[in-house]
Amino acid sequence: MPANKVIKLVSRPKEMPTLDNFSIEEAQIPSPAQGEVLLRTLYISVDPYMRGRMNDAKSYAPPFALNEAIAGGVISEVVESYAEGFQKGDVVLGNSTWTLYSVAKPERLTVIDPNIAPITTALGVLGMPGLTAYFGLLDIGQPKEGETVVVSGAAGAVGMIVGQIAKIKGARVVGIAGSDEKNEYLIKELGFDAAINYKTTADLHAELAQACPDGIDVYFDNVGGAISDAALSLINKNARIPICGQIALYNLGKADVGNRIQSVLLVNTALMQGFLVGQYAARFPEAVSQLAQWLQQKKLKYAENIVDGFEQTPHAFIGLFTGDNLGKQLVKVAEPSNK
Amino acid sequence: MPANKVIKLVSRPKEMPTLDNFSIEEAQIPSPAQGEVLLRTLYISVDPYMRGRMNDAKSYAPPFALNEAIAGGVISEVVESYAEGFQKGDVVLGNSTWTLYSVAKPERLTVIDPNIAPITTALGVLGMPGLTAYFGLLDIGQPKEGETVVVSGAAGAVGMIVGQIAKIKGARVVGIAGSDEKNEYLIKELGFDAAINYKTTADLHAELAQACPDGIDVYFDNVGGAISDAALSLINKNARIPICGQIALYNLGKADVGNRIQSVLLVNTALMQGFLVGQYAARFPEAVSQLAQWLQQKKLKYAENIVDGFEQTPHAFIGLFTGDNLGKQLVKVAEPSNK
Repeated sequence: MPANKVIKLVSRPKEMPTLDNFSIEEAQIPSPAQGEVLLRTLYISVDPYMRGRMNDAKSYAPPFALNEAIAGGVISEVVESYAEGFQKGDVVLGNSTWTLYSVAKPERLTVIDPNIAPITTALGVLGMPGLTAYFGLLDIGQPKEGETVVVSGAAGAVGMIVGQIAKIKGARVVGIAGSDEKNEYLIKELGFDAAINYKTTADLHAELAQACPDGIDVYFDNVGGAISDAALSLINKNARIPICGQIALYNLGKADVGNRIQSVLLVNTALMQGFLVGQYAARFPEAVSQLAQWLQQKKLKYAENIVDGFEQTPHAFIGLFTGDNLGKQLVKVAEPSNK
Repeated sequence: MPANKVIKLVSRPKEMPTLDNFSIEEAQIPSPAQGEVLLRTLYISVDPYMRGRMNDAKSYAPPFALNEAIAGGVISEVVESYAEGFQKGDVVLGNSTWTLYSVAKPERLTVIDPNIAPITTALGVLGMPGLTAYFGLLDIGQPKEGETVVVSGAAGAVGMIVGQIAKIKGARVVGIAGSDEKNEYLIKELGFDAAINYKTTADLHAELAQACPDGIDVYFDNVGGAISDAALSLINKNARIPICGQIALYNLGKADVGNRIQSVLLVNTALMQGFLVGQYAARFPEAVSQLAQWLQQKKLKYAENIVDGFEQTPHAFIGLFTGDNLGKQLVKVAEPSNK
C-alpha cells in the first residue's frame, strides 16, 4: 500500500488564496478501529464556501485549524471495513480530509449507488450543490410560471441547476456568468433564455434590464457585490431573494460597503433570506429523488470540471475564484477498484 | 357653515421637509353627489411613510401631486349623507384629504364604534400603526418565548406596539429611541426590558450588545441606517428582520450607502422582509379584535401626541422626523358634534 498524503492549511489567506497557503505532506495511513472503515479517496470536491472556513472568523462552519488537514465533501472507496453495513469496495460520500486515505465512522458516510448516475454526481447535481439549488430556489425563491428568475454565478455547480429547475417550473431564466463560452453553454445546452457576461458588459444594469423586460421576481444570489446591486435594482413587487453565496466578497479582505438593500426590500415588499443546505437535511431524500428523476428525464443536465491528481486540489480550489470551472469542480484522485 | 381649507404640497422636499413645502388655502366646501357623504374632519394622522409620497419617485404608493391636497388617514364625522349605511353624526375612518371638509364614497370609509375605545385609536393602536406592528412582528418576526426582540423607532406609534406585543409573547424586549424621557416611558409604562438612547450613547453597538446578552432573534426595523447596522451585527442564527420603515433615510437626499447585509443574512441563515400593512387586509378583523382585547385587558397601552389645529398639520408632520412625538402623532381639527 502506498504512503498517505495530506493537504494542510498552513496559513490563512487574506484575500485571494495562493498555493503558499497550503502544504502537501507525506503521512501515515491511519488505522481504523472497531466500528470504523478505512477509506481510499477517489474524488475531492472543492467548494466556494470552504474559503470562509479558511478565515479565523465566526461563521456557520468553524474555521479550519492551521497545520491540520482540510476537510470537505469527498467520494471514497472502502478499503477495510470494521463497521456494520459497509463492505470493501463500497463507494461512499462523506465529509473527509484532503488525504489519500482516511478513517471514518459509518454514521458520517452514505453509500453511493453507481446505478443511479455516475458516482461523481454525489458531489454535484445529486449532492450538496444540487440540493442547495433545489431548496434555495423552490423553498425560498418559489418561482411561478411566467415569472423571471435571475441567477448569478450561473455557470457554477449550483447556478446551473438553479436555472434549469426554474425552467422546469416555467420561468424565464437569465444567467449572469463570467465568460461568453459559459453563457453559450447556458443558453444552448441548458435552455437559459438569456445570459450576461458581467466581465465584458459595458453596462450590467442596462443589459440585465433588457434581458428582464418584466423585471425580476426571483434573484438567486451566489455572488453579492456590484452584480447583485444591478439585479436588486430591478426586482418586482413581492420578489424573493435567496442568498446562497457571496463569492465576490470571499477574497475582498475588507468590509462589504455599498448600496444598502433595506429600502429596496421595503418598497417592493420583498423577501431576502440566507440559507444553508443543511437546514433541509430532513428533506434530502425527497430532493435527491426528484433531481434523479429530472436527470433520467433529461430535463436536467450537469457539467463537471475534473482535474486529475491529488496534488492539484489547492490549484482547483483557487480556480473557483477566477472562474475556471464550468459546473462542478472536482479533483480526481483515483479510480474505483471495481472499474 | 364656515369655509373649507386645504393643505397642499407646493414643492417637493429634497431632504428634511419645511413649512415652505406646504400651502394652506381657502377652498369651496365640496358638494356630495348621490351615493356620497360630506365629511367634516376631526383628526388627521401624520405618518412617516407620507414623506416617501412627497418624492417624485417610484414607490409602493404613487407620489402626491404638486399643488393638490395631501391625503392620508383621517377621522371625520358625516355631515350630510347620500349614501346607504351612513348617517349624519357617524364617525368614520378613511383615506381623506387634508381639508376641513371632504366628500367620500362609502366603500372607502369605515364607521368607528366609539364604545370600543376612544375614536383616535382608529388611527393608532387599532388602526394602521397597530396593524403594522401586529402583522410585521407576528407574521414575519414570529417572536418565541425567551427570545430577544429589538425594535428601533421604539417610541413611535408602531414601535411601542411592537414592543408590547413582543412582551405579551414572552420575549425580552429592547427598544431604541431618541430621548431619555421616551425610554423611561418604554421601560416604566410599557414594560420594555431595556431601552437605548441612540442620540446620546457613546457606543450604540456596545450598549446594545450589553442589553442583548443572548443576541438578537428579531430586529423590527423602523429606521435603517447606522442604528440598524448596530442591531444587525448582533443577530442570532435564524433571526427574522421585518423591514417596516427606514425613517433615518427618508430625508437623506442621497443614496443609502453602508454595510451590505447579505453576508450577515447568509452566515446567520436569517430572513429580512419588507412589508406593507395592506398586504394583510384580509386579516385586519382578526388583528383589530386581538388588539382591542389586549387593550381591554390592559396588556397593551398606547400613547398619543395630539396637536391642536388644522393649520398645525405640516408642523406636526415635520416633527415626526425630529422625534417630537411619543406614540401616535395626530392633529385635532374639531370635536365630534355629539360630544
